[in-house]
Amino acid sequence: MEEYDLIAIGTGSAMSVVEAFLALNPEAKVAVIDKDEPGGICLTRGCIPSKILLYSAEVAREVRRSKEFGINARIDGIDFRKIMERMRRIIGEDVKMIEEGLKNSPNIDYFREVAEFVEPYKLKVGDKVISSKRIIIGAGSKPLIPKIEGLEEAGYLTSDTLLKLEEMPESLAVIGGGYVAMEYGNFFAQLGCDVKIVEMADRILPNEELEVSKFVERKMREVAEIRTRSRVFKVEKRGDRKVLLVERDGKTEEIEAEEILVAVGRAPNSDILKPERGGIETERGWIKVNEYLETSLAGVYALGDAIGKHMFKHVANYEAKVVIYNAILGKKMKVDYRVVPHAVFTYPEVASVGLKEEEALEKFGKGNAFVGFFRLEETGKGIAMNEEGFVKLIVKRDGEILGCHIAAKNASILIQEVVLAMEHNLSVFDLAESMHIHPAQSEVVMWAASNLMSVDEYSKIKEEMVNA
Amino acid sequence: MEEYDLIAIGTGSAMSVVEAFLALNPEAKVAVIDKDEPGGICLTRGCIPSKILLYSAEVAREVRRSKEFGINARIDGIDFRKIMERMRRIIGEDVKMIEEGLKNSPNIDYFREVAEFVEPYKLKVGDKVISSKRIIIGAGSKPLIPKIEGLEEAGYLTSDTLLKLEEMPESLAVIGGGYVAMEYGNFFAQLGCDVKIVEMADRILPNEELEVSKFVERKMREVAEIRTRSRVFKVEKRGDRKVLLVERDGKTEEIEAEEILVAVGRAPNSDILKPERGGIETERGWIKVNEYLETSLAGVYALGDAIGKHMFKHVANYEAKVVIYNAILGKKMKVDYRVVPHAVFTYPEVASVGLKEEEALEKFGKGNAFVGFFRLEETGKGIAMNEEGFVKLIVKRDGEILGCHIAAKNASILIQEVVLAMEHNLSVFDLAESMHIHPAQSEVVMWAASNLMSVDEYSKIKEEMVNA
Repeated sequence: MEEYDLIAIGTGSAMSVVEAFLALNPEAKVAVIDKDEPGGICLTRGCIPSKILLYSAEVAREVRRSKEFGINARIDGIDFRKIMERMRRIIGEDVKMIEEGLKNSPNIDYFREVAEFVEPYKLKVGDKVISSKRIIIGAGSKPLIPKIEGLEEAGYLTSDTLLKLEEMPESLAVIGGGYVAMEYGNFFAQLGCDVKIVEMADRILPNEELEVSKFVERKMREVAEIRTRSRVFKVEKRGDRKVLLVERDGKTEEIEAEEILVAVGRAPNSDILKPERGGIETERGWIKVNEYLETSLAGVYALGDAIGKHMFKHVANYEAKVVIYNAILGKKMKVDYRVVPHAVFTYPEVASVGLKEEEALEKFGKGNAFVGFFRLEETGKGIAMNEEGFVKLIVKRDGEILGCHIAAKNASILIQEVVLAMEHNLSVFDLAESMHIHPAQSEVVMWAASNLMSVDEYSKIKEEMVNA
Repeated sequence: MEEYDLIAIGTGSAMSVVEAFLALNPEAKVAVIDKDEPGGICLTRGCIPSKILLYSAEVAREVRRSKEFGINARIDGIDFRKIMERMRRIIGEDVKMIEEGLKNSPNIDYFREVAEFVEPYKLKVGDKVISSKRIIIGAGSKPLIPKIEGLEEAGYLTSDTLLKLEEMPESLAVIGGGYVAMEYGNFFAQLGCDVKIVEMADRILPNEELEVSKFVERKMREVAEIRTRSRVFKVEKRGDRKVLLVERDGKTEEIEAEEILVAVGRAPNSDILKPERGGIETERGWIKVNEYLETSLAGVYALGDAIGKHMFKHVANYEAKVVIYNAILGKKMKVDYRVVPHAVFTYPEVASVGLKEEEALEKFGKGNAFVGFFRLEETGKGIAMNEEGFVKLIVKRDGEILGCHIAAKNASILIQEVVLAMEHNLSVFDLAESMHIHPAQSEVVMWAASNLMSVDEYSKIKEEMVNA
């Protein structure tokens, strides 16, 4: 049995910990295990490939509305194969580079195998058993596949397998309405595929603010069919078509498509990793960690999707930093999730950080929570771009920024000044007084910060947006 | 002679002062004078119309490169008239609204006339003489027309008159290479006009960092001809063509085009306003103000282009705030230009704030000034967008951010988190540790903040960029 100074399970963000460890311990022996291509989910089948694909969708959308701006352009064809191959080429190059790094490091034993705990500090890897007192679990997650009668038999795509597509299905039924469903729904729809989104909740993106969901829904309906409050209970294959049997308001509806995409959430990998056998506690399969990201087994840390918290790459990167401090440098750094932004690359783009309106009301009461709101279409640049969108800030009576929710082109860039403000306890007044280039898109953030109102006043605007 | 509680010259940012004054003094009598359409330069012939037009240019550019992303689009035609009419309709609606506001206010006498000082506190307006102890000068600026033999006879466009164009010239010679020249050069070139930029300095955008100039030049050369170190000394009209006679390295060259755009800078309006007669000092025609924005005549304040400092609308808005404090609220607020961002809406977009490398070196010495640098094409989103660009931070030894210079798509949005950081003395390390959404474009700012180097180390990168 081989003993290592460090074992890393997963080649995503756990690799930052490995690199830091080797920089400080150049003689150390490290085992790195990954059952899949190296690079982690983000690179190999998550945010990077999806954002490459989604950029093609954005370009298609821009071309389609170019007439509004006096540019009479026309799409002669969509080269789906080229779109997919551009993505696979970029990803492939990166994966190869990481693979070579792993294979050529004299300090690293790289196992492309399934890892499985056999007892505390001991892992079975292929036909070997290896051990270490210091283990980093960055084992990721996988698409959650709901138990639906006939689904397995009919066959389906996931966010993993769709990356291998060579041809675009002429129609696609998407089971789910969360961010993966909506991003890929947007991708296929913008390219001309007949997309039908089927969501069980009463709205898509149910984790976002209500008006964000409704606004994205309204815009997405221009290119896709969206059915909410719809539960798929059976899937049938009829010839070369697939049919979803859906229960909606007590009635059964049928949704037919060439292909199905299942995107209802993520599931842990604990069924194969078997952390419990290693004395590592889990909760619904996700690895349990304390505020130092240490598991129930001393010396074993976990990060990223594996802990089932904020499944975003930038959060995993941050958690890797915390693990480096605690597992490598012997510090006691607490993980802090107060300011964790995320984005959804639909059209329009969504970005969000901190508390939502309802959470703020619950925490601080109606008299203490305010809303700052402004529409992109009321700003100079918004008019120039002919784009709708909005910024909604959640603010405490004393000016503390509690949260921010944006639905607009470039939302993922717009939100960063709010993130920085929240991290450093700058107030909404600081944001309002910050000099913003005129006329640039960020003015909408400044105007939202300057346009504060009570939750009651805001409720009229909200109602308008929800019913638009 | 009518006596007013306040006289405002100009209907741009000076109007904010009028509004604040009337909010506090609902019985006051105010005179508002503007020889042009109301709304100020920004709205009527500056940033707003240009950004509306430039968005069409951006759309045209996106369409033209859509094949890179698998979208086989083609431009069948450019509807120049529609592009211009969209702009004129939007501006026209706003101007009309402002005009009605001015005409219908019971407190305001609105003069669409030339204002001219006749003595301190007294102005001739049309055939009237009016006076006030409190005067706000927001008289703007106008295109500077260089004295070139034959120019007047040949005829030319300026950033004012080009807004009236009905048809796109088939070719355009642009005299100047500053931001107005480059923005409109970009506009016409992206729409297919044969554009020739003629700049006297050895590079376009001479007020930007050298590598910014060079990068924009390289990219703009894909759509336009750029001649630097070229001095136009004569203009001739030959048939329906106009010919610039240009001196370059001691030789004479000819540049022929259907139309000429003169964009070499801005000039003050003092020749018609005659502030000196009112006891108001000027410097090369620009109104002199102290740090409270008061002119040499007590009670008379000036702001915006008229003072000839930072001729940007967002600066004028800020100056209006300072004037409100000092002229209306009786405070003593000093104007602070430490953190003044600006953008140039070329392709690629440019945004900049604070010190440039050379200024920092001069001020703090080589050992104390550092550069943070990162290329957009080395970030996930940059790869997805297939866009080149970069962020350059100028940093003091202790981490203080002295300046930031960006050339990249969306530069005007990207820079705002740096502006906020500088305003609140957050360090480059704060910027580097701020959680940035992955993979979104703002990561390039974070990576620049994480990638600090000495000026000497940076010089190699700079050389590479300048010679690319």
